[in-house]
Amino acid sequence: MTMDIATRVYNHTFKIDPIIRSVLDTDFYKLLMAQMIFKLHRERRVTFGVVNRSRTVRLADVIDERELREQLDHARTVGLTKGEEIWLTGNTFYGRKQIFEPAFVDWLRAFRLPDYDLRRLPDGQFELHFDGPWVETTMWEVPALAILNELKSRAVMRHMGRFELDVLYARAKAKLWEKVERLRHLAAEGPLKVGDFGTRRRHGFLWQQWAVSALKDGLGEEVFTGTSNVLLAMRLDTEAIGTNAHELPMVYAALANTDEELREAPYKVLRDWESCYSGNLLIVLPDAFGTTAFRRDAPEWVADWTGARPDSKPPIEGTREWIAWWHAKGRNPKDKLIILSDGLDVDTIESSIRALRGDVRLAVGWGTKLTNDFRGCAPNSDDGLLAPISVVCKVIEADGRPCVKISDNPEKATGPQAEIDRYLRVFGSVGMARNPVEV
Amino acid sequence: MTMDIATRVYNHTFKIDPIIRSVLDTDFYKLLMAQMIFKLHRERRVTFGVVNRSRTVRLADVIDERELREQLDHARTVGLTKGEEIWLTGNTFYGRKQIFEPAFVDWLRAFRLPDYDLRRLPDGQFELHFDGPWVETTMWEVPALAILNELKSRAVMRHMGRFELDVLYARAKAKLWEKVERLRHLAAEGPLKVGDFGTRRRHGFLWQQWAVSALKDGLGEEVFTGTSNVLLAMRLDTEAIGTNAHELPMVYAALANTDEELREAPYKVLRDWESCYSGNLLIVLPDAFGTTAFRRDAPEWVADWTGARPDSKPPIEGTREWIAWWHAKGRNPKDKLIILSDGLDVDTIESSIRALRGDVRLAVGWGTKLTNDFRGCAPNSDDGLLAPISVVCKVIEADGRPCVKISDNPEKATGPQAEIDRYLRVFGSVGMARNPVEV
Repeated sequence: MTMDIATRVYNHTFKIDPIIRSVLDTDFYKLLMAQMIFKLHRERRVTFGVVNRSRTVRLADVIDERELREQLDHARTVGLTKGEEIWLTGNTFYGRKQIFEPAFVDWLRAFRLPDYDLRRLPDGQFELHFDGPWVETTMWEVPALAILNELKSRAVMRHMGRFELDVLYARAKAKLWEKVERLRHLAAEGPLKVGDFGTRRRHGFLWQQWAVSALKDGLGEEVFTGTSNVLLAMRLDTEAIGTNAHELPMVYAALANTDEELREAPYKVLRDWESCYSGNLLIVLPDAFGTTAFRRDAPEWVADWTGARPDSKPPIEGTREWIAWWHAKGRNPKDKLIILSDGLDVDTIESSIRALRGDVRLAVGWGTKLTNDFRGCAPNSDDGLLAPISVVCKVIEADGRPCVKISDNPEKATGPQAEIDRYLRVFGSVGMARNPVEV
Repeated sequence: MTMDIATRVYNHTFKIDPIIRSVLDTDFYKLLMAQMIFKLHRERRVTFGVVNRSRTVRLADVIDERELREQLDHARTVGLTKGEEIWLTGNTFYGRKQIFEPAFVDWLRAFRLPDYDLRRLPDGQFELHFDGPWVETTMWEVPALAILNELKSRAVMRHMGRFELDVLYARAKAKLWEKVERLRHLAAEGPLKVGDFGTRRRHGFLWQQWAVSALKDGLGEEVFTGTSNVLLAMRLDTEAIGTNAHELPMVYAALANTDEELREAPYKVLRDWESCYSGNLLIVLPDAFGTTAFRRDAPEWVADWTGARPDSKPPIEGTREWIAWWHAKGRNPKDKLIILSDGLDVDTIESSIRALRGDVRLAVGWGTKLTNDFRGCAPNSDDGLLAPISVVCKVIEADGRPCVKISDNPEKATGPQAEIDRYLRVFGSVGMARNPVEV
């Protein structure tokens, strides 16, 4: 038996096992949004804050605060490598070369994550805020969530033996592969497009890497669309996918000076986005303040966008509303693209695709249930803490003004109640329905 | 990333990946029988032959003859190491120290597997014979079978990708662990003893090692009795288990000069065994020529033996017959030990244990379905060839005379028909029933 003594000794010297090891270990849409913010909103200051909606899981009891600080501190030391920059600038994204402009790449090369503000609250949760220039604080969302979720996994698994861990991962692999096989059957029936959107809620980086590899290998390039994780897209030689998020309309809305500007904010986001991107990147994320109101007040040109990502309505119902709207606007829904991305698992992917296939182009952004489904996998009974939690990192303030999100599911609403009430007055509450939030 | 260049380069130079790497990679009962043969039958010449009872699997089409020769040749180079000898002589087996006498250990130290005779038959099977002194040829049984079974596995898996193999083993681990959990439930209801008897039919050495580790870790030392594989018992720090096999009565019977001596042969085996071993090693293997006849003609002292291993009758029925017989002989069955070992899986283990628990002491020798159950585990459909085959290595001749086995299931009968007829005349066929042989 030969032992690689140097490696073993080098490993001894690790202070921590870093979770975030690359600036690109984030979702692609953060880079797209950062570039737009870099170009149009460099002066804006935005505060992001982490909220664990799974209140019963007292994260601050599960995760050691010192370990959390070490991981956050380490993430702040990570910078873009030469090889990553070459890949980012030389690669084609959504069929377009040089999607990132030289000035933004210069900025990204020098970028380090800004400081954070962490404290433990009496209710057993962490308060974790990021305050600073929007283009910097926006970059914390995904690494902060990935760190929290992986530290939780590690805390649960710390008490497992070598053998228990072996069985745990064997079962998780077998379980995920069952899902892949079901998707293969679904793909055999007709068109199917599935990609990974699971970075933020992943069990851990290496597990996400396995899951994406499984999806790529199992579905093949006709079905597998890629991963939202930029680093994994680079490593696994696949597409980086994703467009934009609620923070854009939320910040734009917070910065509105009048109710009229507030009502216009969601469309101003789209105009600005169009000035940066085109084609399949023109996907409306309509639900920040209610999808029905969004469509009702939308200017005519919104119907020219490539598609939409319904994110808080039941997928079939949400998609059919879009189809009806495009019809009413004289557009052919079969030319339009719907991205399904709200807490899907194989059951809901199957039912949605079977119900909607043929009526519209469909793509699935599969998240938490792809990268963090360990239910029933722990060999010795209790794996409750291995279940994913509904933790998010949302904009709280923009230039000192509170940010609000309503969505189509008021259970997901965030912001001060007075502001929520004002938004509901301006946008109305038509088409909203309360539904429990799982992930 | 540090690479251990020396290891990698050393690996380049491997001509083959050897299956048998230790003299102790065999079943414990082979060593016990070899010592008895060494002491009492050194002059006997016995021929062993491999028979694949799964005729539809054309082994010689699946396994490359050159590869088979390389593995058999390699096995012949392997000798007892110093460390193995120290463990074998210093260890306690079945509660007894120094079970192997110095003269036998001297012999084992110098032992190498004897030559073999291999050819390809027109029906797609191999003819593989081992001819020579009994004490030497007996040692081929387990390595020869392990080599054939692992080469078959390797041939099937050669076409699988890195990822397919990962899923295959993940599923196999998950599948085996489901079984372990069922056995834990069974153990929670009452006494349970389970050990590994799966060396010969194993999928591969490393997989057997994982399976035995899983059993040890999952069942705990109250339930897990150990492994028949001596090398694994040493490596995994557990008990080596097993007693004796059909070759003893088969050779004794073949050497009988009269029908009367033939009828006495099974009991002469027991007398000789008693001269070597005691306690829990006194387990009758009664079915070589029919269990019912064996008990009918058994001398009174046979009822003093510790227990029996019914190997070819349905386990519940076979055990109840023993219980009735011990009752009739005035012995308390609750003091007696039944080893169940005939093609069991969790279903049959559960039903047998639940039916018999409390009436007799029970121990399960779990074989093929422990170490080679990959049904449904291959990621891309067809895994038919991963199913275990019913391949055996049996005595054919002893000092030039044909050997016969009848068992309680004439489907398992081996030997020339004229001799089978003679044995059936001498022992009768009471209590026999034809049942299909799976493994």
